[in-house]
Amino acid sequence: MEVTARAPGKIILAGEHAVVHGCTAVASSIDLYTSVSLRLRSEGEGTIKLLNDTGLDFSWSIARIKEVLSHLGSPFSSTPTSCSLETVKSLAALVDEKSFPESKIGLASGVYAFLWLYTSILGFKPATVIVSSELPVGAGLGSSAAYCVALSAALLALSDSVKMDVSQKGWFTFKAKAELVNKWAFEGEKIIHGRPSGVDNSVSTFGNVIKFKTGVMTRIDSNMPLRMLITNTKVGRDTKALVANVSARKLRHPGAMSSVLNAIEAISDEWSTIIQSHAVDDLCLSANEEKLAELMEMNQGLLFSIGVSHASIETILQTAMEYKLASKLTGAGGGGCVLTLLPSHVSGAVVDKLVEELESFGFQCFTAGIGGNGVQISFGHSS
Amino acid sequence: MEVTARAPGKIILAGEHAVVHGCTAVASSIDLYTSVSLRLRSEGEGTIKLLNDTGLDFSWSIARIKEVLSHLGSPFSSTPTSCSLETVKSLAALVDEKSFPESKIGLASGVYAFLWLYTSILGFKPATVIVSSELPVGAGLGSSAAYCVALSAALLALSDSVKMDVSQKGWFTFKAKAELVNKWAFEGEKIIHGRPSGVDNSVSTFGNVIKFKTGVMTRIDSNMPLRMLITNTKVGRDTKALVANVSARKLRHPGAMSSVLNAIEAISDEWSTIIQSHAVDDLCLSANEEKLAELMEMNQGLLFSIGVSHASIETILQTAMEYKLASKLTGAGGGGCVLTLLPSHVSGAVVDKLVEELESFGFQCFTAGIGGNGVQISFGHSS
Repeated sequence: MEVTARAPGKIILAGEHAVVHGCTAVASSIDLYTSVSLRLRSEGEGTIKLLNDTGLDFSWSIARIKEVLSHLGSPFSSTPTSCSLETVKSLAALVDEKSFPESKIGLASGVYAFLWLYTSILGFKPATVIVSSELPVGAGLGSSAAYCVALSAALLALSDSVKMDVSQKGWFTFKAKAELVNKWAFEGEKIIHGRPSGVDNSVSTFGNVIKFKTGVMTRIDSNMPLRMLITNTKVGRDTKALVANVSARKLRHPGAMSSVLNAIEAISDEWSTIIQSHAVDDLCLSANEEKLAELMEMNQGLLFSIGVSHASIETILQTAMEYKLASKLTGAGGGGCVLTLLPSHVSGAVVDKLVEELESFGFQCFTAGIGGNGVQISFGHSS
Repeated sequence: MEVTARAPGKIILAGEHAVVHGCTAVASSIDLYTSVSLRLRSEGEGTIKLLNDTGLDFSWSIARIKEVLSHLGSPFSSTPTSCSLETVKSLAALVDEKSFPESKIGLASGVYAFLWLYTSILGFKPATVIVSSELPVGAGLGSSAAYCVALSAALLALSDSVKMDVSQKGWFTFKAKAELVNKWAFEGEKIIHGRPSGVDNSVSTFGNVIKFKTGVMTRIDSNMPLRMLITNTKVGRDTKALVANVSARKLRHPGAMSSVLNAIEAISDEWSTIIQSHAVDDLCLSANEEKLAELMEMNQGLLFSIGVSHASIETILQTAMEYKLASKLTGAGGGGCVLTLLPSHVSGAVVDKLVEELESFGFQCFTAGIGGNGVQISFGHSS
């Protein structure tokens, strides 16, 4: 029995950083996915295997896992529970037994999350799990959340507690259990990130657009077709330091900074109004796209003014501007990814030329539709 | 008898564009000057000559000038009066008689202003007037105001109504008559610009720093030594169109734009507080410079967000940023000039390297001290 779950990445459309100071931000799913395929194996094989598309290949005997996790009691609760620090240590011991390539040590916490979610949801059934992803890691596109969401969905789809019609064909959404998937995924995110906001896993689970402010998330139904070019600067950044620098600047220049944050909030509010509006024709769509392009330019200026831009980001802005396309950084800034709005009238040839130019600088480009489905699953029937 | 007057150019330190919407802006003099040398000639020679350092060379017979301006009555009022449209037409006729190089046709209104100020203040005395300038024309550095101020000062210094001690040596300020110089210069600016704000001629006349808001100017005494690199993009721009675009954007995004303008106002207020503070030591100076650099970065982000930056400006910003120096556009934007703060700890070698790099792009660089003297005069005694 095999199931594949795929969960989308996310981008912040507006309001990053300001959200830390109580303002509204708007996030959206993108149609770039992390997929998790889960195949249950016969009991006799006695191992749980985890493979991914970058060459990671782990295998644990069920007996060894049971031994290490025995102090936790069994069976585990089937409702989402947090992984204690003590349990993380036990899981780390399981991972330490394997040789982890130095360059991928940052993924270790993803393996802890895997072991926690797997054993919590499926117990000790032998299986092979294959993870593949279209999302760059650590670039602010929510790759870890997409991984946790896809993993949770795949595990729940084959768990005894969830009854699924496995004869369904093709991709389908996992509506009835979406809340449960989201909660488990959040537990996984906590293992990976410590104190995630919950926005990334919610966007990945439910798809579409989410507005969030002071911890409260509101789902927005957008039917506006919207495409972005996402350019990964490949410049790593320290999100905590960037957030701290903004707070320090706010202390030094309280008047100016609070007005800047108000301006960002107004931009987030305009974004959510525009993408909820129903464009009645191409003219209306095009007018809305122009407004959004202008909002992106404004938001980028404000992000520059709070000090979170970066030379690599500015290079991308300037390059896109030569094609009269508006851009803004997305996420923490200081590197990471840049969004460039691709209005409906822009030809593929123009986009290709822009991508070629950006990639000649060493950047990595993705084109993505905005606000599509959340997590979906598909049953395969390989023996 | 010869007198030379020199008047400084100006930069906007903070608040450009926002000032149009009722916010505070801060302008400062720079130690780059336009000089006007005026030598009275013996009555027998019967001409008024105007020469400048770009090769303009005009000469009118006193008789011809009298003929054209006869309908105005004589003698002229020695208090500053506006030049009527009809008079401008008469002056234009005098200029049209001369061959004006096509490339310098934009300077014609400067010649009208010359003829108006000359005949109003000195009447029909024969003289040679030589204008030279360190200021680029049409780049937002107040070259026309510096010209009108220096010209008015030179004319007033040799007029019968102003009694000067011509035996004074070296440059001296023209304090007692500064208000009169400023008023005459404003009349000249009106001939050149139509509806000038009066800020440029006030800064050029009085020097130092001026804060202005809704038409009210307040002089600020700053003792902070401050140096800027001024880079001229050489990109011409349409100030009226830029101002109109900002207003249109404000109509489209009223919430965000009004917060952006508030942020700019807060930055202007901080600027004027900081430059009025008396730095007690180098450490304090350096802390203030850091604050100003941050304010410039913030202001630039906000100017970008209202849509008045330009690719050439962004190139300069990025180049200066490689040297960890903060910059902002000054004036209308869309080209024009960019300011880069040169903190006291920055070595001449670093500045030279930056200038070399910027000039390799085809830009033109000036280093300037901020907030120095206004108009000054000096008597020569060439026979």
